[in-house]
Amino acid sequence: MKPFANLGDAPLTPETLYFLPLGGSGEIGMNFNLYGFNDQWIAVDVGITFADDTTPPGIEVITPDPSSLKTLGERLIAIIITHAHEDHVGAIGYLWPALKAPVYCTGFTASVAERKLGEAGLLDQVALHRVLPGERRSFGPFEIEWIALTHSIPESHALCLEVGGLRVVHTGDWKLDPNPLEGVHYDDRRLMALGDAGVDVVIGDSTNATVDGWSGSELDCYRGLLDVISQEQQRVCVTCFSSNTARLASLGRIARETGRRITILGRSLFQYVATAKANGYLREFPELVPPEDLDYLPKSEQLILATGSQGEARAAMARLARGEHHSLVLEADDCVVFSSKVIPGNEKKLFRLYDLLSSKRIRVVTEAEACVHVSGHPCRDELTWMYRALQPNTVIPVHGEHRHMVAHAELAQQLGCSALTVQNGDLVSLTTSPPRVEAKIASGRLGLSGTSLVPLTDRALNERRALALGGMLSITVVLDKKSRLVGQPQIELMGVPSGELGGEALKAELTFAVEEILAEASSRVLQSDDALREMIQRELAHSLHQWMGIRPRQLVQVIRI
Amino acid sequence: MKPFANLGDAPLTPETLYFLPLGGSGEIGMNFNLYGFNDQWIAVDVGITFADDTTPPGIEVITPDPSSLKTLGERLIAIIITHAHEDHVGAIGYLWPALKAPVYCTGFTASVAERKLGEAGLLDQVALHRVLPGERRSFGPFEIEWIALTHSIPESHALCLEVGGLRVVHTGDWKLDPNPLEGVHYDDRRLMALGDAGVDVVIGDSTNATVDGWSGSELDCYRGLLDVISQEQQRVCVTCFSSNTARLASLGRIARETGRRITILGRSLFQYVATAKANGYLREFPELVPPEDLDYLPKSEQLILATGSQGEARAAMARLARGEHHSLVLEADDCVVFSSKVIPGNEKKLFRLYDLLSSKRIRVVTEAEACVHVSGHPCRDELTWMYRALQPNTVIPVHGEHRHMVAHAELAQQLGCSALTVQNGDLVSLTTSPPRVEAKIASGRLGLSGTSLVPLTDRALNERRALALGGMLSITVVLDKKSRLVGQPQIELMGVPSGELGGEALKAELTFAVEEILAEASSRVLQSDDALREMIQRELAHSLHQWMGIRPRQLVQVIRI
Repeated sequence: MKPFANLGDAPLTPETLYFLPLGGSGEIGMNFNLYGFNDQWIAVDVGITFADDTTPPGIEVITPDPSSLKTLGERLIAIIITHAHEDHVGAIGYLWPALKAPVYCTGFTASVAERKLGEAGLLDQVALHRVLPGERRSFGPFEIEWIALTHSIPESHALCLEVGGLRVVHTGDWKLDPNPLEGVHYDDRRLMALGDAGVDVVIGDSTNATVDGWSGSELDCYRGLLDVISQEQQRVCVTCFSSNTARLASLGRIARETGRRITILGRSLFQYVATAKANGYLREFPELVPPEDLDYLPKSEQLILATGSQGEARAAMARLARGEHHSLVLEADDCVVFSSKVIPGNEKKLFRLYDLLSSKRIRVVTEAEACVHVSGHPCRDELTWMYRALQPNTVIPVHGEHRHMVAHAELAQQLGCSALTVQNGDLVSLTTSPPRVEAKIASGRLGLSGTSLVPLTDRALNERRALALGGMLSITVVLDKKSRLVGQPQIELMGVPSGELGGEALKAELTFAVEEILAEASSRVLQSDDALREMIQRELAHSLHQWMGIRPRQLVQVIRI
Repeated sequence: MKPFANLGDAPLTPETLYFLPLGGSGEIGMNFNLYGFNDQWIAVDVGITFADDTTPPGIEVITPDPSSLKTLGERLIAIIITHAHEDHVGAIGYLWPALKAPVYCTGFTASVAERKLGEAGLLDQVALHRVLPGERRSFGPFEIEWIALTHSIPESHALCLEVGGLRVVHTGDWKLDPNPLEGVHYDDRRLMALGDAGVDVVIGDSTNATVDGWSGSELDCYRGLLDVISQEQQRVCVTCFSSNTARLASLGRIARETGRRITILGRSLFQYVATAKANGYLREFPELVPPEDLDYLPKSEQLILATGSQGEARAAMARLARGEHHSLVLEADDCVVFSSKVIPGNEKKLFRLYDLLSSKRIRVVTEAEACVHVSGHPCRDELTWMYRALQPNTVIPVHGEHRHMVAHAELAQQLGCSALTVQNGDLVSLTTSPPRVEAKIASGRLGLSGTSLVPLTDRALNERRALALGGMLSITVVLDKKSRLVGQPQIELMGVPSGELGGEALKAELTFAVEEILAEASSRVLQSDDALREMIQRELAHSLHQWMGIRPRQLVQVIRI
């Protein structure tokens, strides 16, 4: 199927409920899903993803491409955010101008969304509505209910959508944590009641669908951290995801129980602690010791919380490891706890960090050594619990790479549900029984380049790779009216190592080579900028490859005066 | 300590045995070690390492920097290669011209070294001597014995060095595999005899020093592979390290036992199979089915061996996954086995490959699912066995990142040895009791750029990062004798996305901006190329940051006619 560039161009059947994932299916990150009925649409989550080794250089933040929605206009009636993780709310500031619909979420999530909209200078344009957990609201033909679930951040919600005679549960991100420590219990009674009332479709989290068992509880993690920290005699430094309020609460409690006081290093931890407190969490979190007062506190009483659990070079943890943090120098016999998972792709960066710490005789504890982290996503037994509770006719896995979605679909089928695996851009009719892909809608990725969002396929972004791999050679020749060289050819090199020859000698060789090319060029070539450029490029590419085995990008400029 | 740029400048004591690691200590890769006595030196291993995310773009192969040895001349009397892995022999073709000493190794290793020297056009210059396993040779004051060990490649040897009244065992890479399937058993009797005779120092492999237990046997791996492959009904494709001859032998045997025939895809597998056979290995390896005959063979009888177990984009496995291999298209219900570890840093690349295969409904089996790989390096129980056998006074961990070397040192200390952890460039006296670092010698890394070796600190290589992150903007102005602009400023952009503005509009804006700068510049600025360049750069940097939040590298050329 050829994708429709505009959702508006796809043939839509009235009285049919459509589901359209535009981000997060076939990937973990940038969740962006749409539901439509009688040409009224709601968006669920507007997330970002981060660059990896396939991303063009210079791009760090990636958003879904919303351009297929540009003709929707006011038919997009609401944007609902299920919870405050970056892959669900992170793009709200970047994409809202293309979506322009009111935003709905619960308080904690709203605080985070508000910060992002503020950073984008949009606060006065966006209607941001705070919904209560468990609340039910109408949006055009949609009746939507927020259902509390547990996750690794407060206030993660499933949405139950009732529309066109169907009941659809969009799970968002979840786990079944019997002891979440912060926030409410997952609403198992409501989930079972929905199952009894009849659920047509569940669209849900596939992250851990290949992992057996249960994801574990924040209580296990509290116990593991207490065990590690209570054995330490010197300074302990813990890094975890800043948004994991339960983890922060555990660390607050452990600080009290082990006679330590907490110091926070890193902006995002301060932000999330403030956001949590403003929304009624972290009520018993101890008063902080400011970094500048650490010198007055014995090391055995210090518990440092640092940002940067993924080894981000500019975050507190990496700066501490490099000995470059302005407030604190870690010392031998200190202990650093990574209370976090290793996000795939960050392994080598983190191993380097562990190594740097260990070279300073600092003990490193990761989830490989002790129970200092639990995942926030449902493992297979939790998925099984959910499908036994909801008894859906059909499961559509999202929020996962392909293998996670396939494992999720197979599990659902074993439990007696039908299953449909989808990709970003699949326009799925949920009214059809079973649901099926009716059309393809254009989907893609935009990269944040400076302050612009640029398609990742942009030619200029890919040109950067060529510049990166081989550097670049600039040749400028000035020709007079008779196509005779004026002065010397100008040669400049950027990012081209000159090897044993040396920079000046290489420039001289290239200057001489260009002069020779011009001297031997026919008048036909000399009179055509294109032909001359092409000849210089070809000859120099050949020479450089022969001399040094390199192929820099070339910029040949012919200036005629 | 400030490092000596030349080993020859360090104060050396006569009758003292020195050890100098110049690669492989504090890292896994590019092993390069020196031993010296009365100013006669031998090098042990000359390996490469591969680029990671910290390497400047465009560099794939990295070697140790041998420049601190350049004054050694004929005092470097031998290069000994312990085994044929890339991190031990891979740099021989690149660094031999800087070392110029005869090379000694056993047959299989010599075949690989010969290929590398041939590729570098050095075969007629290098004296390559084949040594027998268990042989003893004299090199100046050194008596050196080759001691057979098991590893993941045939003919991995420890070296026992007797010199200056000391006995030093340099382990190379090893494990204790009771059933190595190919090649000889490790020489436990000789190791125990050496222990009884008295070993002063062991310098050895730290790779798995953090891993409890034993590394396992190739026989376990054979059984695991047989178990997986015998359950498959359709095509099976296995990828593993090409140099793991035992693994290839197992697969040959499994092919026969499961009624399959083997087809090889990928040049390095062909090379290593040929090398193995030429040295007496793989004697029972079945005859191959050429790729072009695969169509005549039922899928249930196909066993494909493919290169690219680390997800290398140009190797057979990745091309098969992408459906771009010219000889074979993998289909649903085929099975792909990764009979290899995931080298840290390759996780994301491999996960993508698994995902691509799973999206085609191809079953993926990795060491996480079945015993289809065993490590080639000693785990803690094997290290314990070795130190109980050799009973050394001192252990110096090498071949590991810092945390591996620290764990190795701690284990050795628990076993009653003294231990010294070193870094590349540490000049260690082994005669001192206990050994100690006497001086620092310059060490570093060279990157292969085209056909030149360039220090990784080369300014041009780092310039590539800036080009990659922001692209580049070239501005050329031609001025007449009175510093008046001739024609229009020439603006060229490479790797700069123009965002919503569009490329031509951005060029026009920049042209106009440069004209304005020139129009308003003082005659002092106009008369100085440097001042004019600096002013244009500053103003355009400011404008681009304001307009688009970007900071491309700038190349400003002022041409006067």
